[in-house]
Amino acid sequence: MMAGCNSTFRLANPHLSDKETLYHLGISTDDNLQQRFGDVKYVCLGGKNKRMENFANLLYRDLGYPDNSEVDDASKPKEERKLVDITGSAGRYSMFKVGPVLSANHGIGPASLSVVLHELLKLIHFSHCSDVSFIRIGTSGGLGLDPGTVVITDTAYNGLLQPHHAQVACGKEIHYPSFTNPDLRNGLLKCALTVTNQCVIGNTLSANDFYEEQARLDGAVCSFSEEEKNAFIRRAHDECGVKNMEMESTCFTAMCLRAGVKCGVICVALVDRLVRDNVTGVKGTGVGTDNKLKEWELLPQVICAKYIKEN
Amino acid sequence: MMAGCNSTFRLANPHLSDKETLYHLGISTDDNLQQRFGDVKYVCLGGKNKRMENFANLLYRDLGYPDNSEVDDASKPKEERKLVDITGSAGRYSMFKVGPVLSANHGIGPASLSVVLHELLKLIHFSHCSDVSFIRIGTSGGLGLDPGTVVITDTAYNGLLQPHHAQVACGKEIHYPSFTNPDLRNGLLKCALTVTNQCVIGNTLSANDFYEEQARLDGAVCSFSEEEKNAFIRRAHDECGVKNMEMESTCFTAMCLRAGVKCGVICVALVDRLVRDNVTGVKGTGVGTDNKLKEWELLPQVICAKYIKEN
Repeated sequence: MMAGCNSTFRLANPHLSDKETLYHLGISTDDNLQQRFGDVKYVCLGGKNKRMENFANLLYRDLGYPDNSEVDDASKPKEERKLVDITGSAGRYSMFKVGPVLSANHGIGPASLSVVLHELLKLIHFSHCSDVSFIRIGTSGGLGLDPGTVVITDTAYNGLLQPHHAQVACGKEIHYPSFTNPDLRNGLLKCALTVTNQCVIGNTLSANDFYEEQARLDGAVCSFSEEEKNAFIRRAHDECGVKNMEMESTCFTAMCLRAGVKCGVICVALVDRLVRDNVTGVKGTGVGTDNKLKEWELLPQVICAKYIKEN
Repeated sequence: MMAGCNSTFRLANPHLSDKETLYHLGISTDDNLQQRFGDVKYVCLGGKNKRMENFANLLYRDLGYPDNSEVDDASKPKEERKLVDITGSAGRYSMFKVGPVLSANHGIGPASLSVVLHELLKLIHFSHCSDVSFIRIGTSGGLGLDPGTVVITDTAYNGLLQPHHAQVACGKEIHYPSFTNPDLRNGLLKCALTVTNQCVIGNTLSANDFYEEQARLDGAVCSFSEEEKNAFIRRAHDECGVKNMEMESTCFTAMCLRAGVKCGVICVALVDRLVRDNVTGVKGTGVGTDNKLKEWELLPQVICAKYIKEN
């Protein structure tokens, strides 16, 4: 199933037909996919639509306004062209094409991620792309790390501290491996270290929610004590080598492995969960500043853009 | 924990402090919550931000442009005021206030829903609201129903066909009941029948993804055969009384029950999953029209608005 280095990417699902609608992306096999997207080498994903639009604009400048981008008006001077959201009126996600890169948002959590990931994998299949890497850039809680530290994921663990993704299909649960591509994660680390010296490779805990599954006490409901919380986070850190917590990597890595595309995850840690539950630097929380948060949030984008430019 | 009919709503979580930031809603306890939101009686949720903005605008007209709405400029004539997105620059969700109603989007899937639901429950707690109902309006796949049929949820089942929500917390899985409030669902049905005669109460299967867990064959990857798919959907329909499939009701009902607020779910079925996987009426799929889809998608909004106006 794994595609060779320069061979055309093919999905192995025998149920796919030649005519498919990528419903949540607002695109279909009638939309000249091979011509428009056949040159894609990187699919970059992150939670917020605005962040992935910013990332696309950052790339557009960094790559020198490449012609093979999807813009509003190709007759304008390059610097004045505006990247268009390819999803049109579908209203679920945003997606931009800059040179060989697709930049799309995946929303919050594995379910939202999996919808767009299924459709992006189908998009590169129908576009006959080759040698594509999928990279998730995001924010996370850190464990034993200073806020602002960049974490590149080795293996993703689920909320039960198991190193796999539990996928339910037709009423049965199936476990799939959930790790990133070694070459890609080492390449991202090497690149990251030229941008910041606060950068580690480690395991990532992916939860199906932001509050209880990540052992936060401050949700609307909470089923555990502060002692149980501390013991859980300590166990994740000490026994599983977990360096950060977010909500998508287990599903993301497992699906990419199943589909046969290389994947990497690069997140910044906004809070040390060994110390506190809340993200600092926002209104009413005391520590840090909004500007610092924005600067940290930018780090995975800058590193990912640099990696793409140099590879 | 359940609040009385006219008593102030209180969350039972002992870990909550007086100062909290509702991070993903872009709001905090410093924002005059009681004054701005103390009169809220309905919190309406749906997937897309645009849909929930449209719903807010529909309500704004239907309720006669109530003064206790959050608008851009209260000095303008009522009809010219524009509802503002209260989440500001938080960039994750959209939220609008119209009279006694909050209209917010929850994105796709239980993780995305749970984040905003935790924070909305905290919002009505800190605002000292009373007698609040939470209503989810959405789209879904139907089982054995004509597209366009409205389904009001009785009990929500998870992807393993169990009538509960499986919540992981501190590395352990806990099962919580997942059903709607009987008075609210019967009230919604009574109201729905004045709008359409294609309306049923039934059980809802909530999956953690759109493709495999809902037994769709046409994702990027697929682990089962057409026979296994058909057997699963048939079992859900025949043995569990499942009338529709979506991705949020199990988590939504379980969290509302735990928090002690009434909840209801009203969805329209866009496709009969006993017949096909794909939503009809979109580009490239042959059956139906875009206009028909838009009309169907509007039904839960119209029914919910009518229910609110009459109760």
